[in-house]
Amino acid sequence: MSDTKVYLLDGGSLVLDGFHVFWNRGPGGEIRFPVYSILIEHAEGRFLIDSGYDYDHVMKVLPFEKPQQSKAQTIPGALAELGLEPKDVGVVFNSHFHFDHCGGNKYLPHAKRICHKLEVPQTCSPEPFEVLGYSDVSFSVEAAETRGMTDQLIDGATRENTTFEGIEGDVELAKGVKLFFTPGHSIGHYNLLGEFGTRKPILFSIDAAYTQKSLETLCQASFHIDPDAGVQSMRRVKQLAEDHEADLMFSHDMENFKTYKTGTQFYR
Amino acid sequence: MSDTKVYLLDGGSLVLDGFHVFWNRGPGGEIRFPVYSILIEHAEGRFLIDSGYDYDHVMKVLPFEKPQQSKAQTIPGALAELGLEPKDVGVVFNSHFHFDHCGGNKYLPHAKRICHKLEVPQTCSPEPFEVLGYSDVSFSVEAAETRGMTDQLIDGATRENTTFEGIEGDVELAKGVKLFFTPGHSIGHYNLLGEFGTRKPILFSIDAAYTQKSLETLCQASFHIDPDAGVQSMRRVKQLAEDHEADLMFSHDMENFKTYKTGTQFYR
Repeated sequence: MSDTKVYLLDGGSLVLDGFHVFWNRGPGGEIRFPVYSILIEHAEGRFLIDSGYDYDHVMKVLPFEKPQQSKAQTIPGALAELGLEPKDVGVVFNSHFHFDHCGGNKYLPHAKRICHKLEVPQTCSPEPFEVLGYSDVSFSVEAAETRGMTDQLIDGATRENTTFEGIEGDVELAKGVKLFFTPGHSIGHYNLLGEFGTRKPILFSIDAAYTQKSLETLCQASFHIDPDAGVQSMRRVKQLAEDHEADLMFSHDMENFKTYKTGTQFYR
Repeated sequence: MSDTKVYLLDGGSLVLDGFHVFWNRGPGGEIRFPVYSILIEHAEGRFLIDSGYDYDHVMKVLPFEKPQQSKAQTIPGALAELGLEPKDVGVVFNSHFHFDHCGGNKYLPHAKRICHKLEVPQTCSPEPFEVLGYSDVSFSVEAAETRGMTDQLIDGATRENTTFEGIEGDVELAKGVKLFFTPGHSIGHYNLLGEFGTRKPILFSIDAAYTQKSLETLCQASFHIDPDAGVQSMRRVKQLAEDHEADLMFSHDMENFKTYKTGTQFYR
């Protein structure tokens, strides 16, 4: 749509070892990387794609990821910078439920919630190697109850206001807001293409490719459930960027992130 | 069989980062680990399970794994210590074709060769993330030709003397020498149970679990093609050990390896 605006909500940063960012390739050593959410102002409504991480959760469960997050880098804080409140978000879509993509969901009980239909069940019963990835279940009463982690829920969370509409396959969330099913990193992972009136489309790789180098070398993150599918999804990301003549934006690439528009700046 | 003897052929050692040995868990830092092959003297013949790594290959392709291997730790050297020559081996079975399990195959052109039916095709067309794992193709003219790596072949290697009999599912290689299909680490990975006349059976986890800690924590190596299957295979290893009341022996566990019988000592 010609009046679509895309804002990147800076969500702070985390640290991982290089062997996590670049699976089996490294080199090892600490890498600090950005986390952000995507706010889409659209004729059909206001969409939030992902919601970053919760600082307290990370400090409690994964302090070794050394979170750095100001108040302005929380979902309420980032929205406030734009003169918005959480209740102004009409739809929240989660690319997947790793903790750094759903930590702000709890602030959005009024929004419609959408995700791949397998992501909530996976959060309820993660593989042993996924337990830390799916460690923030504050977005879902069902997941919190199933895993005995209801202490994470905030006041006012109910089954009703934390239930998701499950989708599958490629889906157009709104005109020109396209979700592409790209599993591997997680069982129901999506990435996102935003189309605009004038400028080139933007393809957000989300976690199919943390960084530009990841995509160039087909080196996925060490967090994955199906690395074979992960490689196919990376190839799909490349093909989508080519087919749509889209600019690529990466989810956790500090060098590139520094060149992205954030705060009150936006893409249109 | 009551007169079965099992020798462990010490194949030297390699180094990996802790994040490779313990996927996504670590801690990071160098870990030196043993590599060994299993020689079974059996009423039905002399069986070699795996054949270690080739020093020159590792120095050329993966020198960062810092191989330490004496002449006595090559397949010909280890067999010589037992008064044997490579031609005395009747059957070589490879649990999978990662370079540290097939490097000595080239010395065994007279042996019958057996592996899972998917392992040679996978070596011919590995996933991008498997290329280093499957980097020693000297055991197969077919794989070497398919991948343009015929420089690895030694004089005398032919399609005929490097062709494998492909098996699938659980197979009893000889009476009391049982192969259990345990994929995940590789597409066609097997582990091994050896039964004896008097002593308890020995279950070799092979690479379904590099170390005792790996099995206890269900933490597979970061080298894998299907981590979901990898977890199931680890659970299967535990169950097999229990069902057969077997002693467990791990493939790459230095602390435990130091307690294993090697050289001219054997299990019977």
